[in-house]
Formats: sequence, C-alpha cells, structure tokens
Amino acid sequence: MQLRYHPYPLQLQHTFTVSGCSRSQTPDVLIAITHQGVTGYGEASMPPYLGESIESVCRFLSRVRLEAFDDPFRTDDILSYVMHLDDDEAEAHNFAAKAAIDIALHDLVGQLLGQPLWRLFGLSPERCTYTTYTIGIDTPEVVRQKVREVEGQFGRLKVKVGVPGDRQLIQTIREVSDLPLTVDANQGWTSPEMALEQIEWLSGQGVIMVEQPLPKHDLEGLRWLTQRSPLPIILDESVQGPADVIRMKGCCHGINIKLMKCGGLAPARLMIQLARMQGMQVMLGCMTETSCAVTAAAQLAPCADYLDLDGNLLISNDAFRGGMQVIDGRVTLQSAPGLGLTPLTPPNPF
Amino acid sequence: MQLRYHPYPLQLQHTFTVSGCSRSQTPDVLIAITHQGVTGYGEASMPPYLGESIESVCRFLSRVRLEAFDDPFRTDDILSYVMHLDDDEAEAHNFAAKAAIDIALHDLVGQLLGQPLWRLFGLSPERCTYTTYTIGIDTPEVVRQKVREVEGQFGRLKVKVGVPGDRQLIQTIREVSDLPLTVDANQGWTSPEMALEQIEWLSGQGVIMVEQPLPKHDLEGLRWLTQRSPLPIILDESVQGPADVIRMKGCCHGINIKLMKCGGLAPARLMIQLARMQGMQVMLGCMTETSCAVTAAAQLAPCADYLDLDGNLLISNDAFRGGMQVIDGRVTLQSAPGLGLTPLTPPNPF
Repeated sequence: MQLRYHPYPLQLQHTFTVSGCSRSQTPDVLIAITHQGVTGYGEASMPPYLGESIESVCRFLSRVRLEAFDDPFRTDDILSYVMHLDDDEAEAHNFAAKAAIDIALHDLVGQLLGQPLWRLFGLSPERCTYTTYTIGIDTPEVVRQKVREVEGQFGRLKVKVGVPGDRQLIQTIREVSDLPLTVDANQGWTSPEMALEQIEWLSGQGVIMVEQPLPKHDLEGLRWLTQRSPLPIILDESVQGPADVIRMKGCCHGINIKLMKCGGLAPARLMIQLARMQGMQVMLGCMTETSCAVTAAAQLAPCADYLDLDGNLLISNDAFRGGMQVIDGRVTLQSAPGLGLTPLTPPNPF
Repeated sequence: MQLRYHPYPLQLQHTFTVSGCSRSQTPDVLIAITHQGVTGYGEASMPPYLGESIESVCRFLSRVRLEAFDDPFRTDDILSYVMHLDDDEAEAHNFAAKAAIDIALHDLVGQLLGQPLWRLFGLSPERCTYTTYTIGIDTPEVVRQKVREVEGQFGRLKVKVGVPGDRQLIQTIREVSDLPLTVDANQGWTSPEMALEQIEWLSGQGVIMVEQPLPKHDLEGLRWLTQRSPLPIILDESVQGPADVIRMKGCCHGINIKLMKCGGLAPARLMIQLARMQGMQVMLGCMTETSCAVTAAAQLAPCADYLDLDGNLLISNDAFRGGMQVIDGRVTLQSAPGLGLTPLTPPNPF
C-alpha cells in the first residue's frame, strides 16, 4: 500500500467566530492510500484548539510506513500500528493525522468489497436524522434573512450560546422560524447554577439539547446539572476517545463524537457502543472539513440522536463530489462503495 | 429472511466430569437463516450451569420474527431487536439463543460478501496461537497415555484444578510432557491466600495461566490475588458480557470470552475492545459444541492471548465439516466465505 498526503488549506465561505477568535481559513491535509490501483481518500482537519497543525500532521504521516502492509483488509494490525506510532513521544496525540489514515483505509476496504461503509457496519440508512446548521451571531436583520434562506433546507438550527447576545439571537430566530434548536455553550457558562438557569430559559424557546454547558473538567458540576437539566446535556470538549465515554457516565445524557478528536471510524464505533451500553445518547459532529471527512462521519449517522455534519457546507474549495448529501435537512447516505467520493481535479491534489 | 431451528443433542466422546457432575450428552440447538437461497448456520449450546435448555432456546427462537427484516446486512437493527426481545421478562437472558442468531447472521453476511468473517473483522489469521486440550482426572497410567497421544497434536494442555488429585495430575503429566499448561480452578479455591499458595506451586510446574481461581463475586479477593499472583489471572465465571469487562478492571489480568455467555460475535468483539482499552489479556473459550459455534469463536482468535477452542473435538456427532481446524496445535482459519461450513447431511437436520 502506498500513502500520499498533501496540505490543503480550506477556504471558509464566511469568516467564522467562536469565543472571540475569527478565521477565514482552516488548516487541512488530504491523504490517499492506494493498493493495486484502488485509492481510498482520507483527511485531517485541524482546528487550532486541538493542538495539531499541517506541520505536525505531515510529520506524523511521514513516519507511517504503509509499504510494510500488503493487505488493506488487515485493519486491526494497521490501525493498531498507526494508533501507537507516537507512544514514545511525551504527549501522544496526532488524532487528526490518525483519523486521516483510518478514513482512507476504511474507504479503500469498502471499495474493494464493493459496499458502502454504512452497509459494512450493519447500519440502516433511513435511520439518519436531521443535521443542524449553525446560525452565527450577527445583526437581527442578517440573522432573519439567513434563517429564512436555510429554513427549507435544514430541519434543525444550532446556536452558539454562553456569549454576549445569545438570548437576543435566539429571540431573533424565533421571530421567523419554529425549527427545533440545539445550543452549544462551548464550556462558556461559569457555574452549574447559572447554567441551569440558562437551560431553563432555553427549554421554553424550543431548544431540544445543550452541548458542553460547563468547563470540560468540571465533572462535579456536570453531574449536578445532568440530574436537574430539563434538556439533554451532550458533552463535546469533555470527551475525546473511548475511555472518556466510560469516565463521563453520570455526568451527561450523551456525547459528541468527532472523528478528528478520537482518531477515526474505528474508535468512533467503539464510542457509540460504549455510549449505548451506558444508556447515553450519541451526537456526531465534525470540524470544518471537505466532503471526505464529513462523509466518513455520516457513515455512522444511523446510530446518532443528533447530527452536526455541516462542515463541508462552510468551505468554498471542497475537493470531492459525491458522498453524503443533506436532502430535506436529513443526512442522506449513498450506495456507492466505500465513501463514494470522486476527487475534483483540480483543486484535489490527487 | 427465514429462520429454522432444530434441537440437536450432542453426544460426548467421553463422559465429562467437572466439580462432581458427570454427563455423556449436552443439549444443543442448530439454526439456519436463509435469505435468497443463501443459508447461514448458527448454534446454541447450553451447559446446565448457565440456565438455558433446549426448551428455553426453542421458546425464545419461536418468538424471533426474522421475516420482518428483508436485508441481512442490517445487523445492527436485527441483533438489537434480538438482544432486547426478552427485556420484559423477569430475568432477561437467553444468551445462547441470541448467540445462535448472531452466529448465523454473521455467517450469512460473510457468504453474501464472499469473505471469511475474520477478514471482514480486519484480522490477520497467522496471529492465531495454540489452543489448549483438556486432560481429565484419571489414573496415572491413563493420563500418561492420553498425554502421549495428544502431545504431537496440541501445543498447550489444560487441567482442572481446585479438585482432589489436581497436583498429582500435574505431576503425572510432567512425567511425560514439557508442554505449557493452563489451569482452570472453576471458583474452586476457598480463600485468596490459599489460591496464592496453589498458584505459586503451579508456577514452578510450567503452568502459564490460571482461570477463575476464586468465587465469581469475590472481587475483593480477586483484586488482592491479581496484585500478588506470579501467573496471569483470567476470569471466566465472573465475566458474562461487556459491562463485566469494565467492572472487572483491576480484579484480573484478563477475561475469558465465550459466545454462549455473551450472546455472539458482536458482543464478543466489543468485549475484546474493552479488554484492550483496559490493558487486559483476552482468552477465547467455548462450550461443548459443533464446529459451527467453535468456528465462529475462532474468527476472533487472532485477537486472543489464550485459546480454548476444543469443544467440537469432544463430540461424536459433529454436524459440519470445514470451518476452523487445529493444525500443529494452532487454531487455523480457512478462507471460505462466512464460517466456511458444509453441513453433514445426515446427521445435520438442515
């Protein structure tokens, strides 16, 4: 097997603001794994707060020796090798780089078997629910116009809260739309009591779920809040990989799984099983990324209670066509083998 | 999909004695799931101590409505339906019956994809280690003869301990063989201190692993023993399904996974992942069963540190040929699709 990788900075359609940080570009690396003329595609997307960069991802990928494996079906050996490749470093991580390999290898195996990944995972595509579309903070006029624009296309809207102007934003949306809302506090509320007060207000506004209300390490506060909240509490920053799902039992109603956090489809599938075992809900999220990584996450969408898979809709230089589509607001899976992607050349480097 | 099932009592080659109970037959049910002319085979084997019987298995299977599913690839929905079919009963179990469905469905999907299950699981068949062969308590002369007979065929022997005559048995084996031994105490030792003393003696006799030294609920004792034992402690009776793997962290060095205990390949795969996450070793065991269930367990053999997959060698009326073979003492996987079984008709009822 041959591994190729290429930095591919993503251009955002609109400048994006979260917690006081604005950006118009996001770092990304596309990869390709080729075996006997068949190519699987993968991607590493690196939001700055996760500590990876184009440099760190390329450095990690330069050390991955896939030539040592001559059978892509041996995913257990290959992914175990990749997962432990940085075990001797001070701080083992490189989860986005690992996710890229995991995604490309799954795509390759799916193509070799002639089956879409969701089918190989035993899933039923009609179980996919609505994905959310994020409405940013803006003037009331712009917000109303934006909501009217997307209302026919999406079945759920997502709003960032825990920032100045959040209640105003929700009230503005409510002037023009009855769509269910989810909110993401991104650890922004400072005490469990204050969070509960906010959530009680939000539950009267047609909000159906709250993401990461408190700082990620405040397990005591999260436990207190989970016992009292009228809305489901879903943890994102508190949960990176499978071990965190066990650790967060009792501290939430569910978890937000992202391939770039956990290292790909294999750990994500384990996290889903752990969540189910513990009676937790499952949310699938993404970063700003091309259709490649979003489509990979979407293969697990039939298992999820909440979907936030709009990352590819936020960029202006997607490198693929095919893959997952949003139709009538729902994530809609295709029957093409693997991820079902066709590279757009150009701009796709492969 | 069409489900058929048939009671199929297994005839033992030799009367089998464990903890004072002798038997020459063991209850078993064979099943077949057919979809568009392709048939997957499954099996429920019911050792008396697990509380299932031919009657309970047939009663459970009579309630499984596979006609409601027209796509065998939807294993997540189908197995979830089967797993929760007895949720309203006082004591939900029927794990052997559930394992039968899980095995047959996996066999069917593997055949439809034209691939052996181990390959669909991403595993490398050359990782399979030796399986043990159990030497029963008998006169020294018979034991010596038996050991000489099997020494060329097997690479590990297993001995039941915690019963009168166990040390004598091990010494008798050592007169004629240097093969590594594993021992199974079946909860037979009465205190952690006494167990430690036995294990220390055993570690001087070429024993490499100890199964279930203490009563299954004595977690305190197991924790104490695990910290001190010179040999790995593997738990069998203490561990039924995935939740037990989490619960037993720190109380053992590893777990013994059996399809009839946990409900099939899907939960067994989850248990393997949980064990790895927690740094535990994995043993794969079986009941007295035909090549069908033994071959199903063997699909996971590349993940196991210890294998005890000799169940089909103990019966005189195996209903299949093909599937897993023991070659030079090692579990050896075949490349035929699914489980790779051919029913022997007769005696196979299908």
